[in-house]
Amino acid sequence: MAMASRICNSVLVTGSNRGIGLELVCQLAGSPSPPTLIFAGCRDPAGPRAQELRVLAQKHKDVITIIQLDTSSPDSISQAAKIVGSKLKDGSLNLIINNAGVNVHLELSNTGDKEMVDTYRTNVVGPMFVAKDFLPYLRMAASQAADQTSMSCRRAAVINVSTLVSSIQKCPETFAMAPMYAYRISKAALNMLTKCLAEDFKKDGILVMAIHPGWVRTDMGGQEVIDSVKGMLKVISSLTEEDSGTLLDWEGNGIPW
Amino acid sequence: MAMASRICNSVLVTGSNRGIGLELVCQLAGSPSPPTLIFAGCRDPAGPRAQELRVLAQKHKDVITIIQLDTSSPDSISQAAKIVGSKLKDGSLNLIINNAGVNVHLELSNTGDKEMVDTYRTNVVGPMFVAKDFLPYLRMAASQAADQTSMSCRRAAVINVSTLVSSIQKCPETFAMAPMYAYRISKAALNMLTKCLAEDFKKDGILVMAIHPGWVRTDMGGQEVIDSVKGMLKVISSLTEEDSGTLLDWEGNGIPW
Repeated sequence: MAMASRICNSVLVTGSNRGIGLELVCQLAGSPSPPTLIFAGCRDPAGPRAQELRVLAQKHKDVITIIQLDTSSPDSISQAAKIVGSKLKDGSLNLIINNAGVNVHLELSNTGDKEMVDTYRTNVVGPMFVAKDFLPYLRMAASQAADQTSMSCRRAAVINVSTLVSSIQKCPETFAMAPMYAYRISKAALNMLTKCLAEDFKKDGILVMAIHPGWVRTDMGGQEVIDSVKGMLKVISSLTEEDSGTLLDWEGNGIPW
Repeated sequence: MAMASRICNSVLVTGSNRGIGLELVCQLAGSPSPPTLIFAGCRDPAGPRAQELRVLAQKHKDVITIIQLDTSSPDSISQAAKIVGSKLKDGSLNLIINNAGVNVHLELSNTGDKEMVDTYRTNVVGPMFVAKDFLPYLRMAASQAADQTSMSCRRAAVINVSTLVSSIQKCPETFAMAPMYAYRISKAALNMLTKCLAEDFKKDGILVMAIHPGWVRTDMGGQEVIDSVKGMLKVISSLTEEDSGTLLDWEGNGIPW
């Protein structure tokens, strides 16, 4: 059922120039009933690393708008919010997929202050400010939705892309193969942000959850990214009120905090 | 049994000029069988806010050494590690209590990049660097301990002072009364750091856990701080291997992540 009905009217995907973000925009735009507006956030829309995104946006030029959005910069986020706001027909945005993030493959001995803070800024502070600065549009969408009694991504939702290794409880099983401190710690922090936002935005009818996309080599592309994103969109499109404040994987299975 | 036997030979307490940190140093020094060496870390040992600590250290001058330690500064931490190392008789330190931390009572709408990053630096990056820079002393203590088959604070341990509001799972119960994003998110991140360190240091025989001191108005002092610290020291002194990687409250009850 996922992509048969329209997933939502309008959506913002951050970090959309490659990997999961690019594939999200691709599958959303290519669905039988695509959103009316897809905002594809990326750090450097004119740069060489956004080449594939530009080709995709050109192919779906009535739907996809590329937005300059560096989630490590509060100024860039507020600027992007203004630009997106000016392009929304009724001031409402249904769905935000906070996908932009960085990974740092460093163990304790070689993790410094810069790695810790840079990773936190991009993976936690960025998604927080995106949620905060785009909140008026989400509120508008939630209040305008026809079905105002339940939560869904068709009404208003924030999806934070997390990871299995964000799970503190699962750490004993996953640490040996992925002892990267800065990344793990930032993603556990993102999970708390997700839960706080879910509580905070409940009164507005805005759903907030975190999703683990599976083990995807985001620089590689290929079948595994396609399948992961198919799963993610299926999960996202079928979310209900009881899923708000949860961490699910791309197949919809719950992951403990 | 907590304070009847010696809790450990040597201990570092960060943020020890006030509140819980000051009371920890006070009760440790005043116990029937105190540690031989208590290092009392504080940001500004000569400043007006360390007056009480200076008086306490003077009273127990053979035991307490005040150490300049600003946990928001990696340089200060590595400098403190060198100074403590030079004062350790056999190069071994049994116990670190990462107590230094900041709270920021700000909701989403007024939390900025600076509040997020400053809180993270002090509450997460600081404890991480303390664990990293003092690791050689902990390893030495773990390897020198008479009983080398089990973990305990008498052998080698890192205790991170966390909070009930660090619990993502408990967020729905606690968010309304404490919607402070920067603090909550940093403490959930500290919990992940705790779990990572517990996994990482297991091979060295070093115990790592996080503790919730209860609801203590740290600027106020008084009976509630005394009782909280009594409970904390009882819990800390009775920790075993199976407690490594857990979050417990000051009465020893487990808190879910």
